Amino acid sequence: MKIYGDRRSGNCYKLELLLSFLALDYEWINVDILKGETRSASFLAKSPNGKIPILELDDGRILSESNAIMHFLAADSAFIPTSSFSFASLLQWQFFEQYSHEPYIAVARYINLYLGLPESRREEYESKQAGGYRALAVMEAQLQKTPYLLGDRLSLADISLFAYTHVAKDGGFDLSAYPAIRNWIGLIQAQKGFVAMQA
Amino acid sequence: MKIYGDRRSGNCYKLELLLSFLALDYEWINVDILKGETRSASFLAKSPNGKIPILELDDGRILSESNAIMHFLAADSAFIPTSSFSFASLLQWQFFEQYSHEPYIAVARYINLYLGLPESRREEYESKQAGGYRALAVMEAQLQKTPYLLGDRLSLADISLFAYTHVAKDGGFDLSAYPAIRNWIGLIQAQKGFVAMQA
Repeated sequence: MKIYGDRRSGNCYKLELLLSFLALDYEWINVDILKGETRSASFLAKSPNGKIPILELDDGRILSESNAIMHFLAADSAFIPTSSFSFASLLQWQFFEQYSHEPYIAVARYINLYLGLPESRREEYESKQAGGYRALAVMEAQLQKTPYLLGDRLSLADISLFAYTHVAKDGGFDLSAYPAIRNWIGLIQAQKGFVAMQA
Repeated sequence: MKIYGDRRSGNCYKLELLLSFLALDYEWINVDILKGETRSASFLAKSPNGKIPILELDDGRILSESNAIMHFLAADSAFIPTSSFSFASLLQWQFFEQYSHEPYIAVARYINLYLGLPESRREEYESKQAGGYRALAVMEAQLQKTPYLLGDRLSLADISLFAYTHVAKDGGFDLSAYPAIRNWIGLIQAQKGFVAMQA
């Protein structure tokens, strides 16, 4: 199988980290967002929504959306709880990530780190700060209660949220007031099979 | 079980429609976003992210995120495919809905229908149009190939995307150039157990 992605993107790194935890073999095809490679005709033929990452299976079938791909890769693994309530809680955290976390923290990081915080995007960058801190507060409240988002065990929820949270400082977010999040970051970094995100 | 929501919200209507298809009993507790009721202390105690809908079970456990709640309600039903690839494709459409569809179509609808398109929000409203049409084009491409998003059968993917697509005109979106989407809307409205969204 092939992953098309950019290792500097948290959405792509989710898959790199999960595949390392699962010790699965795959081929990584680099797609450079900054060079517009997700808008090329050949990429759009594979992924009409024009976003990375995508997974291409050996038979040609394709999946997009990082959090959906994670479920395919980790099917029947210990990273996915089996009770219907815990499974729905896992999805709750992943939808929270895509709607209430990534649009603030990842976008602020992109504007700051990759675009160099140009004056034309400063207002948008600043408008992302409150939403990002709100998302961090929701995570902190849960992680004050349990070491991982779903309780005592690492799950896909943690891998999904770890991706952009552990580099939130790149988007201007200060984690010093979030001790439970910092502890959780350390727990994930200490897991067997952990790989760091490429700078 | 109780659903806390506002029936005019597409995210809440997803649950109303699914529960009707599943013929399940529940209590609906109205929460008025426009009156700020999602920011009240009592609501935030139930749902720290301050968003509707939420599901409260009889034992007090709570789930948030419309698409996650749908998986809990429909567990083991025919609306959820069992093969790991089809299941991941279902999630792919639901993450697409929350990241690439709802933030454009639902937000444009909210500004237009509920706020009355005030001058102060007109630029934001107009900035949502291109993204909304991009999302509709991705759906149209799939629905030109198959009657439902995952193939020949109605699934949670259709219920999730139907919610805001069928009222996209409220956000200024014209569906006349999307015949496959219009056909699909008709197929869903013709299902046994269909209930219309409250205006």
